[in-house]
Amino acid sequence: MLVRMTVVADLPTPALVVAAGAFERNLATMAAARPGPALRPHVKAHKCTAIARRQAEHGHQTFCAATPRELVGLAAAGLTADLLLANESLDADRLRTLADLDARVTVAVDSDATITAAARAGLREVLVDVNVGLPRCGCAPSDAGRLADAARAAGLTVRGVMGYEGHVVGLADADERREKCAQSMERLLAAHAIVGGDIVSAGGTGTYAINTWANEIQAGSYVLMDTAYGALGLPFVPALRLVATVVSVSAKFAVADAGLKSFGMDHGNPLLEGGETLFCSDEHVTFRPEGSVAPGDRVLLQPAHIDPTIAYHERLWVADGAGLDAPIIDEWAVDLRGW
Amino acid sequence: MLVRMTVVADLPTPALVVAAGAFERNLATMAAARPGPALRPHVKAHKCTAIARRQAEHGHQTFCAATPRELVGLAAAGLTADLLLANESLDADRLRTLADLDARVTVAVDSDATITAAARAGLREVLVDVNVGLPRCGCAPSDAGRLADAARAAGLTVRGVMGYEGHVVGLADADERREKCAQSMERLLAAHAIVGGDIVSAGGTGTYAINTWANEIQAGSYVLMDTAYGALGLPFVPALRLVATVVSVSAKFAVADAGLKSFGMDHGNPLLEGGETLFCSDEHVTFRPEGSVAPGDRVLLQPAHIDPTIAYHERLWVADGAGLDAPIIDEWAVDLRGW
Repeated sequence: MLVRMTVVADLPTPALVVAAGAFERNLATMAAARPGPALRPHVKAHKCTAIARRQAEHGHQTFCAATPRELVGLAAAGLTADLLLANESLDADRLRTLADLDARVTVAVDSDATITAAARAGLREVLVDVNVGLPRCGCAPSDAGRLADAARAAGLTVRGVMGYEGHVVGLADADERREKCAQSMERLLAAHAIVGGDIVSAGGTGTYAINTWANEIQAGSYVLMDTAYGALGLPFVPALRLVATVVSVSAKFAVADAGLKSFGMDHGNPLLEGGETLFCSDEHVTFRPEGSVAPGDRVLLQPAHIDPTIAYHERLWVADGAGLDAPIIDEWAVDLRGW
Repeated sequence: MLVRMTVVADLPTPALVVAAGAFERNLATMAAARPGPALRPHVKAHKCTAIARRQAEHGHQTFCAATPRELVGLAAAGLTADLLLANESLDADRLRTLADLDARVTVAVDSDATITAAARAGLREVLVDVNVGLPRCGCAPSDAGRLADAARAAGLTVRGVMGYEGHVVGLADADERREKCAQSMERLLAAHAIVGGDIVSAGGTGTYAINTWANEIQAGSYVLMDTAYGALGLPFVPALRLVATVVSVSAKFAVADAGLKSFGMDHGNPLLEGGETLFCSDEHVTFRPEGSVAPGDRVLLQPAHIDPTIAYHERLWVADGAGLDAPIIDEWAVDLRGW
């Protein structure tokens, strides 16, 4: 009996596809640069326990997440060694759920309110989240010591500090990225000197190599990459594409079946391989093809920002190659969606 | 026993909330302007059969959708009278699924390939989709007659034409909207004169009142609205908000727990009631509050574009009012997501 293999071009579209070889290369590159606990993989980028398991197989047993549900899913997948909610939460029910997990759970705190919420929920360990320049969460560095004392007074163990230089990780100029990273980490280390603890957690895919001050880096995008990070000259390669079907062709443009509900759009249009993306609407991308295309043809697109792209999808297909003819070898659930 | 009612401020966040009164008012306003089959509600905006049922209760028994899965869900909800896939598909499996529904199903076609696919799948009725100026799907008006003949030769019944003036529905200037709508419909009516059939389907929330040429309007956003449509001076009111929790407060800004995975961003930032949205990141909105806020406070945000916003969420909560103290009276599944 001859069974025809399913290839990328056979998938129902739109569908996200992971190129297995590129993915494995990214895992290996990062594991060599940041072995074991020097990397705390951030699962918010991929929201997929199958990927987290591969990161664990590459030696990273510590994880961080942006939502309680991501941590619950990691624990359910057996990845229980050291889970960090790298975010603030005031949700009593969800914090209690985290405290009740059969896993080591640490949460970030940056205020008296978040400390009280963590202690009341029965959580035992925290990091003090320090604002290092990104206008988002984190206390003022000068307030970090007081908050650490308050956390200890509430019965919590303070494991150290975290501070995300999110305003730095995407800077195009590498020198500027290095300089501003140093400034941010100066703030974090000043806070750490007062707070104490073993952990100085920071960084992301854009600063994993230049942030030499943090002792663990919270990177996630490196496994799959996107065009935003692809512009930075990092040693990681594109490993995530979306396959779409051409549904309409006219003299000056063509249209494929993937749009605003397939791609996070905050970093702009996806990059269409073999053509130029003109614009996206809810379920379509209008593009100018380089060659001739016909209805039914498949096209591949690279997302501009993987995090809000993957959050739209139920699954990732895994292919042995990066092209339309690559055989499908696995299917992974995007099982950490939601909050 | 005193049972405390759940109000909007009690919901786990981020959460989408429908203001029941505003929603009902929008339904009534549209049903008065476009009664019965003069409106073919487009479910792509809300992806929710509970909302489609309310539209049916207001007299609209015909529906249209952008994806096969939306039609499958409508049929499962008993809304079987007249379902239109207002989009092209070359997916043989999904088209067969549509043909096998116990429902009247019509699909749009704009090429020989889409006609062949529809006929092979066992579908019986089509509309010829005509390009009326938006660079997306639809045949050239001059090709519509040939395609209608080809469809009939393939055994399909041609019910008429559709043509979406998507480049017109969002124009800020009402006169320009009216003028360009007229130009688009001139193209559609020219095609209809050759194609024949009972249906001239077009339009959206932005042109529902000024498009007097189409005999059915494909509007969806009117039921819930967003800030993009809100700018057009239409008689529909904001009925969808997202409630988020303030998780961090600093001297110059505050941060709430809803970001790029809660909002479609193609039309820009959400509008925060009682403050100014500064920027969104994956799970956060950084904003400048008008008054003082504290961690744990709730804020309400209006999406810029509801379609890709709702597609991120599993459910819509229904509240008896538009404020944080409005009681929650129902919960609707966003059950038409995906493709």
